[in-house]
Amino acid sequence: MNIGIVGLGLIGGSLGLDILAANKNLYEEGFFLDELNYVWGLSRSMETCRYASEISAVNIAAVDINDLPNHNYIFENTDIVVICTPIAAILPTIAALAPKFSPNVIFTDVGSVKSAIVEPASKICEQSGQRFVGSHPMAGNASQGISAAKWNLFKNRPCVVTPSADSEAVREVRSLWQSVGMNIYECSPEEHDRAVAMISHAPVMISASLIAACQQEGDAGVLKLAQNLASSGFCDTSRVGGGNPELGRLMAEYNQPALLRSLQTYQHSLQEVISLIENKQWAELEAFLANTQRDRAFYMD
Amino acid sequence: MNIGIVGLGLIGGSLGLDILAANKNLYEEGFFLDELNYVWGLSRSMETCRYASEISAVNIAAVDINDLPNHNYIFENTDIVVICTPIAAILPTIAALAPKFSPNVIFTDVGSVKSAIVEPASKICEQSGQRFVGSHPMAGNASQGISAAKWNLFKNRPCVVTPSADSEAVREVRSLWQSVGMNIYECSPEEHDRAVAMISHAPVMISASLIAACQQEGDAGVLKLAQNLASSGFCDTSRVGGGNPELGRLMAEYNQPALLRSLQTYQHSLQEVISLIENKQWAELEAFLANTQRDRAFYMD
Repeated sequence: MNIGIVGLGLIGGSLGLDILAANKNLYEEGFFLDELNYVWGLSRSMETCRYASEISAVNIAAVDINDLPNHNYIFENTDIVVICTPIAAILPTIAALAPKFSPNVIFTDVGSVKSAIVEPASKICEQSGQRFVGSHPMAGNASQGISAAKWNLFKNRPCVVTPSADSEAVREVRSLWQSVGMNIYECSPEEHDRAVAMISHAPVMISASLIAACQQEGDAGVLKLAQNLASSGFCDTSRVGGGNPELGRLMAEYNQPALLRSLQTYQHSLQEVISLIENKQWAELEAFLANTQRDRAFYMD
Repeated sequence: MNIGIVGLGLIGGSLGLDILAANKNLYEEGFFLDELNYVWGLSRSMETCRYASEISAVNIAAVDINDLPNHNYIFENTDIVVICTPIAAILPTIAALAPKFSPNVIFTDVGSVKSAIVEPASKICEQSGQRFVGSHPMAGNASQGISAAKWNLFKNRPCVVTPSADSEAVREVRSLWQSVGMNIYECSPEEHDRAVAMISHAPVMISASLIAACQQEGDAGVLKLAQNLASSGFCDTSRVGGGNPELGRLMAEYNQPALLRSLQTYQHSLQEVISLIENKQWAELEAFLANTQRDRAFYMD
């Protein structure tokens, strides 16, 4: 397989590491050298390109695709191009690259939203007679950049792949993620966006609101006390609200309708709890909390 | 010191373990045997009493204090009785025990609320000419029961101690918690309750509401997908909402006014975020999230 990785950060870098690591097994299984995986990469930073080559996340990388010495071979023979840029850059990147490639190439992405990407990306690819399949490999949020890239980042993690009229393209993209150990869930962009709004995007806003509310305490002594007494419960509940602000903004910007719907559902659940407390319905509150204790298990591995 | 521990669960058992473990050091420092710590315990369960003795969390324990063979010595010579029962049992337990003890004894507790405990408990103790000092050692939430007791549970963790007209009593109770490694914060019951409402009790309700909201998803396919895709972010944000329902109910019941105030402040912060998303104020949303990212650090160790 010839794979292009555009954007050599944590996800792109880790993907390259795993694909190239598989070459050893392929070779031992009797594949010929020219049948092994070949990975080319693009990054905005020359230093990242060099580092990615050094750690064998790519065979070759450049800032501009035309600077790759074998770019004509790459344009003709790449099987899949994986766009691993931030969300906002996905469509412009595909629009810039697609016309250079043969119609056989398949484009995919790794964005955490799908409705805003899949349809326009598919249209761009169609113009060059190419196919697009949306992906969302759900792995590794804490660190960023090529220096955080590691082997087996994707192992046993879920990956959403969106459907396409071209079932062969879907099969190829599924295989790619399966080859790095992911569990594939195929669903529509809308279903994906609703599900991740609830379990991934809304928690960021819910968690951030907790930090903001704590900081509203007007008594400086009580505020300082709260800061000193905060322990593991607060630490966990506030963790995703203390994450990268740009990522938080982008998930809201690109998944606005589903996120708003999730947050409104959340407001109703919160109001239900508050009403139980206001009305001193203690048995009902305990029953509510017994349900959430039971239901949380459905979301755990 | 002669210490009584009433309620031999995680907190009571771990306290006994650390107090008795300190005997070895005291002995090596040249203290006489009869100057070492002595710990008696009470539990509703005979099996817990036996287990607590076996692991040296207590020197002696019984279900009924009159069954302790040396109970007359204990009534006369106990320095501090630490009530480690669930919140609802604290006041009845003090009311039942106080009349048996000499006026020299100091009662304290480990309840996670203080306004509802400190004033009535102080009054009960006054009737027997005794002193009460409120405590809240903030350690160990995940597990329960004597089998979860362990050494150094309290080390470097915060402990609130409430003021009293009797400064010697406060000093004694502070020393007890300091002797097991805790950092003491002295504040009024009302300040304590406001601070823990925000950083400990409200997060339980905020987190539980997230689980309840997710379960509201009406499309069975999307619900199943959300459950399959949920990862570390959801896991952390929902953790305290999936905790012991009885504890959640009790913190609401005994800290209702402060908890309601915190949750209302939280509702306003959440509404602020939702409005930013509704109005597509992306730069303002990113600034909001940059603030929460910065401010979270104030709450971390």
